[in-house]
Amino acid sequence: MKRVLSGIQPTGEIHIGNYLGAIKQWVELGERLGKEAFFCIVDYHALTNPAAYDKDLLAQRTFEAALVNIAAGLDPEKVTLFVQSHVPEHTELSWVFTTLTPLGDLTRMTQFKDKAAKLGSNELIGAGLLMYPVLQAADILIYKADTVPVGEDQLQHLELTREIARRFNGLFGETFPEPQAFLNPEAPRVPGIDGRAKMSKSLGNTIGLLEDERSIWEKIRHLPDDPQRIRLSDPGDPDRTVVFTYLSYFAPKELVEALKEEYRRAGVGTLVVKEILFEQMMRALRPIRERAEALRKDPGYVMDALLEGARRARTVAAATMEEVREKVGLLRPGRVPVYAASV
Amino acid sequence: MKRVLSGIQPTGEIHIGNYLGAIKQWVELGERLGKEAFFCIVDYHALTNPAAYDKDLLAQRTFEAALVNIAAGLDPEKVTLFVQSHVPEHTELSWVFTTLTPLGDLTRMTQFKDKAAKLGSNELIGAGLLMYPVLQAADILIYKADTVPVGEDQLQHLELTREIARRFNGLFGETFPEPQAFLNPEAPRVPGIDGRAKMSKSLGNTIGLLEDERSIWEKIRHLPDDPQRIRLSDPGDPDRTVVFTYLSYFAPKELVEALKEEYRRAGVGTLVVKEILFEQMMRALRPIRERAEALRKDPGYVMDALLEGARRARTVAAATMEEVREKVGLLRPGRVPVYAASV
Repeated sequence: MKRVLSGIQPTGEIHIGNYLGAIKQWVELGERLGKEAFFCIVDYHALTNPAAYDKDLLAQRTFEAALVNIAAGLDPEKVTLFVQSHVPEHTELSWVFTTLTPLGDLTRMTQFKDKAAKLGSNELIGAGLLMYPVLQAADILIYKADTVPVGEDQLQHLELTREIARRFNGLFGETFPEPQAFLNPEAPRVPGIDGRAKMSKSLGNTIGLLEDERSIWEKIRHLPDDPQRIRLSDPGDPDRTVVFTYLSYFAPKELVEALKEEYRRAGVGTLVVKEILFEQMMRALRPIRERAEALRKDPGYVMDALLEGARRARTVAAATMEEVREKVGLLRPGRVPVYAASV
Repeated sequence: MKRVLSGIQPTGEIHIGNYLGAIKQWVELGERLGKEAFFCIVDYHALTNPAAYDKDLLAQRTFEAALVNIAAGLDPEKVTLFVQSHVPEHTELSWVFTTLTPLGDLTRMTQFKDKAAKLGSNELIGAGLLMYPVLQAADILIYKADTVPVGEDQLQHLELTREIARRFNGLFGETFPEPQAFLNPEAPRVPGIDGRAKMSKSLGNTIGLLEDERSIWEKIRHLPDDPQRIRLSDPGDPDRTVVFTYLSYFAPKELVEALKEEYRRAGVGTLVVKEILFEQMMRALRPIRERAEALRKDPGYVMDALLEGARRARTVAAATMEEVREKVGLLRPGRVPVYAASV
């Protein structure tokens, strides 16, 4: 693992599922790889999602994604944190990859098929959703990243990236690595507060990383209990509760085990466990929230960090793009083609 | 008509069909509009055509397209002549337009359907051929051109450009004009030397604008005669011959009429008409060929002209792209979003 690229969606509120499932990993990768860890806030991808995209909110969501990730530990002075649209080489490389990709490779992507199925037709769906994984391939390959931290749902897109890299290399000579997925087995898939398998903004079952404390407490207070535990005196199964799942993320192992034991033999009420969960969660989140508050008072720091990140990213992206322009045979400004010079 | 954009394919050898059917019009438009006439050599479009694209020839074909057009009268010191890939804003705007375009608008394009039909499947065709008209829309709209000289076969693509302009304006406020087609009724559709309706490189029935004189003469000498004229003493119908069609492009009207009259009453042999055609054609083409020769000895002039053209085009393209980034709501470098600043 020499260089990592990770795409960050500017989706608005960032929740503890994002934090535990992704951001914590990125922080670790950043500590390991320093400036070779590229974190790209993919605002040009956001345009493809008609349900979430809002022109009046995109800039602040992009800013917020930077702010929260920095607050959560991503150090922009060490890693390369930047906004996709500040590096226009992404869309340029995406066009080159578009010309190399058979349509069938795109229409068989599961994400595309799911979205098209919801609309009932391929014809009505935006072309941006079809081309989404091609821009993603450009995001990754323009930095010649060898590693991409992804969730299971992105493995097919990453396979397409590898396919595009292979095709380009085959046609124009060795240029791109075939990036590997980095699936961290320790990164949890955080369930929603409604008990559903995944916490997700679109399901409305999240706890925001920067959400008001009182509001978080209300959500925790209403977390469903073990459905088979009717009275306080009934023994409960902690593995059937979201409360204990969340507790396992934030509390020390010994405390979690001790509470589980008590819960199993009806020695502790759910409300007490919830109070402990809230306390432990806030202990973990409070430093992030304090950093976020401080950054909010100094937005110029975030903007400068993004500027510097874009500058650093662009140095790499521009070099790759120039190599690509050469290899696909474009006329380079000011350079007379050989045949013409030889006349 | 305030600003015109015309795309020039870097297809390799340019033939008299291109010259008479398009380049001569461009020269006139250039004389009329000066630097508001934008001529873009669309090398990024060339990548979408697997039959014609050759990485080892693209740069020289691009150079050649510039050279021939300049030789034919397009004055780069007056008009804006440049290479598409030298203005990366084209591909960036194309991405934005991609996100606004329903897939069905692209799959119903006749050119796409024809090409897909040849492959027997939509799935095997390159995604670049599907996205082709979206990049074309970006080529035109990034300059806010109001007029586009096109052939009949491009009217559907131009309609899509208008549709994209309307959609963008509707979502983000008045930004782009809806460009109109400029169909010159006087521009001939030049038949091939085999008598087929269209001279076309892919049909192999062309006379190159810069082709060797001897080779041109051989082609003219073998042009088919009126098929119903068997012997020299048979009267011929000049309207059934390519010879007279070509003659009408290059010879004075009176001469053409006089020769037609003779031909009709078997007063002149085809060979003589062909000799006259050759003479008249070469009289028209010789100045172009001489300028081309001179430019070939000074390729730096062509390269400098393209550099200057790109610089001029980029000033306009960058301003439009910045307007687009603002309107779609991207976070601009160094500019704190309002909500964050107000905290």
